[in-house]
Amino acid sequence: MDVDATQRLLRELAHAVADFVKQHPFEEWGVDLGKGADGTAMKLVDEIAEKEIVRVLKAHGGPWNVLSEGGGLIHLGGDGLLVTDPIDGTTNAIRGIPFYCVSLALGRERLSDVEAGIVLNVPTGDVFEAAKGRGATLNGRPLKVRAPGRSLVVSTTHGADVKAAGLRSFGASALEMCLVASGALDAYHYPKPILRVTDVAAATLIVREAGGIVIDDAGADLDLRLTLEPRFTLTAASSREMAKRVGVLPE
Amino acid sequence: MDVDATQRLLRELAHAVADFVKQHPFEEWGVDLGKGADGTAMKLVDEIAEKEIVRVLKAHGGPWNVLSEGGGLIHLGGDGLLVTDPIDGTTNAIRGIPFYCVSLALGRERLSDVEAGIVLNVPTGDVFEAAKGRGATLNGRPLKVRAPGRSLVVSTTHGADVKAAGLRSFGASALEMCLVASGALDAYHYPKPILRVTDVAAATLIVREAGGIVIDDAGADLDLRLTLEPRFTLTAASSREMAKRVGVLPE
Repeated sequence: MDVDATQRLLRELAHAVADFVKQHPFEEWGVDLGKGADGTAMKLVDEIAEKEIVRVLKAHGGPWNVLSEGGGLIHLGGDGLLVTDPIDGTTNAIRGIPFYCVSLALGRERLSDVEAGIVLNVPTGDVFEAAKGRGATLNGRPLKVRAPGRSLVVSTTHGADVKAAGLRSFGASALEMCLVASGALDAYHYPKPILRVTDVAAATLIVREAGGIVIDDAGADLDLRLTLEPRFTLTAASSREMAKRVGVLPE
Repeated sequence: MDVDATQRLLRELAHAVADFVKQHPFEEWGVDLGKGADGTAMKLVDEIAEKEIVRVLKAHGGPWNVLSEGGGLIHLGGDGLLVTDPIDGTTNAIRGIPFYCVSLALGRERLSDVEAGIVLNVPTGDVFEAAKGRGATLNGRPLKVRAPGRSLVVSTTHGADVKAAGLRSFGASALEMCLVASGALDAYHYPKPILRVTDVAAATLIVREAGGIVIDDAGADLDLRLTLEPRFTLTAASSREMAKRVGVLPE
């Protein structure tokens, strides 16, 4: 599949998931389904989103296998690997907090070989996309990280040691990283070692293709095998200098 | 004007502001205009939003005067007082963070006599409304605060002393209060004494009409004269018990 066909299928999948989820009664989204493949609490909205992905992929002849936060590795006989958190920001979604997204990335073995990614902001309909070496877009317009200004706004968890005039905490990593890519945020810092590649595979490519960095807590460019085992912290920022300025990297 | 006519005009105003703002090039929203009537930094987006409110009110014969964060008290010869933060969450708006709103309330002299209010989430199009004694709605559906559950989610500023499993910080008070009204959040706590009635007049009515509470830091039901002078802290919560549970009121 060439990169245009890959991006078209990712787009079809993202919209199918968002539409399918919105058709389900909101009152049922939060029904508890116990633990998923990675040990995270699964909600009904996660399961219906994942099932819709598998259904659409099968309708396309199962071109890719799936690595999903809830379902683990799902073999469809395909070549590439679709790495997905079908609903990122589940707690926000089931409560009706308008900040959650569908996150889909196509890779092979490692985060660094992810070739295309899409993050769809479900409540607003905004679409963030990237293809490796071809840049990132928001609703089709090219994205670029923010030039450093006087006043900084950073999203991070409460209690994190971050220096910025404006601090936010939105509760959906993939979407917060995309706001770094679009220049809305100067940085996003998640200090608890509980993220998985399913959360960040698409957004990592989007940030990097917009000119930003995604690093681990030692300051190295984040790279990981595409499995559910690694749990990690992460910083996305407009630049390495910005990561230093907000205090998440030593000067 | 009866309450239905009042709500219709508030709705017309809110949509006019949102549409007008979206027609302006996004790159210009953040142009700095110096200090507004209340000493806050004014951005171009605040000014165009306020001008649109005055234009629409004049087209309706100037039925109300206006108290606005940027412009102060604007006499149009009217009877009621439109209390407004035309764009609440200005920092989010000018950066492209999808969490900001138009806030409009119709009152007379005090917060407690506000008779109708509307908060329009600009990026999603969600409309929160309330009329005194007639309940609150989201997109026309009745709103009710959240029943207390096992796991709490509260929005507050970073560093605030709040006990909850999930902490958020979205950066637009009126909209965060409306998420308490809708049951999306268990509470919203703003501990810095810098809020004004223009920020919270509409959302206070919406929370109360949804069955929640809006209190000051002594625990008294918030009430203030409708002027720009008072600066205050605020907690909105599903109940007084919830405010105690998250630690913003003593047990």
